[in-house]
Amino acid sequence: MGSAPRIALDAMGGDAGPAVMLAGAARAHERRGDLSFLLFGDEATLKGELAKHPALATASEIVHCEDVIGASDKPSQAIRRAKTTSMGRAIAAVKAQDAHAALSAGNTGALMAMSKLALRTMPGIDRPALAALLPTLGDNDLVMLDLGANTECDARNLVEFAVMGSAFARVVLELDRPRVRLLNIGTEELKGTGELKEAAATLRASTHLHLSFEGFTEGDKIARGDVDVVVSDGFSGNIALKTAEGTARFVTDLLKRAFTSSVRSKIGFLISRPATELLRHHLDPNNHNGAVFLGLNGLVVKSHGNANEAGVANAIRVAARLVREDLTRKIAEDLELVSAKKAAAAAAAAAAQ
Amino acid sequence: MGSAPRIALDAMGGDAGPAVMLAGAARAHERRGDLSFLLFGDEATLKGELAKHPALATASEIVHCEDVIGASDKPSQAIRRAKTTSMGRAIAAVKAQDAHAALSAGNTGALMAMSKLALRTMPGIDRPALAALLPTLGDNDLVMLDLGANTECDARNLVEFAVMGSAFARVVLELDRPRVRLLNIGTEELKGTGELKEAAATLRASTHLHLSFEGFTEGDKIARGDVDVVVSDGFSGNIALKTAEGTARFVTDLLKRAFTSSVRSKIGFLISRPATELLRHHLDPNNHNGAVFLGLNGLVVKSHGNANEAGVANAIRVAARLVREDLTRKIAEDLELVSAKKAAAAAAAAAAQ
Repeated sequence: MGSAPRIALDAMGGDAGPAVMLAGAARAHERRGDLSFLLFGDEATLKGELAKHPALATASEIVHCEDVIGASDKPSQAIRRAKTTSMGRAIAAVKAQDAHAALSAGNTGALMAMSKLALRTMPGIDRPALAALLPTLGDNDLVMLDLGANTECDARNLVEFAVMGSAFARVVLELDRPRVRLLNIGTEELKGTGELKEAAATLRASTHLHLSFEGFTEGDKIARGDVDVVVSDGFSGNIALKTAEGTARFVTDLLKRAFTSSVRSKIGFLISRPATELLRHHLDPNNHNGAVFLGLNGLVVKSHGNANEAGVANAIRVAARLVREDLTRKIAEDLELVSAKKAAAAAAAAAAQ
Repeated sequence: MGSAPRIALDAMGGDAGPAVMLAGAARAHERRGDLSFLLFGDEATLKGELAKHPALATASEIVHCEDVIGASDKPSQAIRRAKTTSMGRAIAAVKAQDAHAALSAGNTGALMAMSKLALRTMPGIDRPALAALLPTLGDNDLVMLDLGANTECDARNLVEFAVMGSAFARVVLELDRPRVRLLNIGTEELKGTGELKEAAATLRASTHLHLSFEGFTEGDKIARGDVDVVVSDGFSGNIALKTAEGTARFVTDLLKRAFTSSVRSKIGFLISRPATELLRHHLDPNNHNGAVFLGLNGLVVKSHGNANEAGVANAIRVAARLVREDLTRKIAEDLELVSAKKAAAAAAAAAAQ
């Protein structure tokens, strides 16, 4: 493989299917001509769609797959169909080093289960986590994980998420020591579940890590710009992420109503339109699309099921960037450093006895 | 006691202390002159504050308490100080029927523990839950619970929350059969924790209840106006509530930035100001202040710790309204109906054998 990112695209996933996936790929390819694609899915359908994007066609190969993972397929059922489905084969292409990253907008649970089975977790990592960048009021975005890969997590999982999320932040946000907090229902030490308290104690004691652990945060403090990595179990993280998306839409809907409630406010709206358009752009989930499974021996990116063409293009850009920055190797290095320091500390403790 | 609401106010709780609590009480009293208050706290301080509100003074009695529950006091420590603290004595006044409802802006965990110990849970209720009204895009607000009283919940707790939340919605939203959903990370039946799946199965089978169970909902669908009662464990509920508050503030902050980013947008903002003011009012948490502990033999209302004068006044209005509507009796009636139907079903099943 050369260094120009080659993406294995599950062209069948997502609510709108191949048309949007290929249009998104075409848009990403237009911006960065060095991208190339392996397109997994029904050959006839993909040929038809690809005919609409001649530039993309020159940079793509279609790999026919007869089967597709459905939105309601259980992960346990899905993994049995890894060899015949567009999702399963896209992941296999990463394992076979035919592509640098896999991207799917399909069933998250199935994608997680298949990726874990095919690519395996990195040494020292128990469970992969789904991470994404979210907008803040500060200078940079923040990394949030887990966003739904693991419904229930123990303290060890949360600590691993903190390490992986920090490595991700170091690469993508270019921060030396990301500020990490655990999502909780209060900032006092006695708040929350036993798992959270135990994870906090471990992180507080782990001063050798490439991160600055700053305690707990709450749902209303996430986006203020004073934290770089927010760690939670997949259930709470998913609730927080979706509630944030829903509330942003709720507020903009109310705003729309307010602006159309009188002639006067309509005029005001038209005048300040460039400003509100900027806001709309900033809040559009399509502009933050592309969540990453961290902790696997290979890159897998999840696009929102309902992402539009621009959203798919963004997720592809995220994947390509992580390929160029060699995220998987950098996380592995951070994890090695952790275990080396652990081993050194254990040796020092043994020598002191 | 007469029917005019008499509120036992923990005048020492809340971030801003007695000044804001009494100013809030004065404002609520101004609107409804039939309100009266028992004010619990340091006598000298309260006398000084009460001197600023002569109308409120005529409707209030001060009960001197030497001790105050702090924000970081553990619930287990707090309950030992029930007899000396302003929070503990306000709750005791409800138990002694000296007041119709207690209101505090102090430590939620301590308030919950003290209320449960003093007032006990209703027959058939294992754990009380914290419920509040939230704004939606629909015609009415929605009831959400639990908002943080119970960090971990089993299926039985969730079912009880659904029954109590529905009774609350029937009283406050005047709905005959509230539409109830469980908060989850997906709407498919196979999503979520074992507790959620079990609670869903029970609610689906419980067609005799005064509610219409409609399955799961997700964080981004709460405020659309198509659900009246959203049920969750206290951890997820608290995360969702605070994330919604934080995101609403985040979006309005971005909007403010957008509107001040150019002279043109500033002009547009000034013109459409009445519309955006309405939005600001609609989103201000102070206008939705006043969460209620459901499932106790007595009314206890929690005000936000950082509520301002208007927020405290709103929480007092909520308490007064629930007194007038006799919420506690109505929930008890709904619960009796449930157990009567359960008993009838059991008798019918026994007869059929």
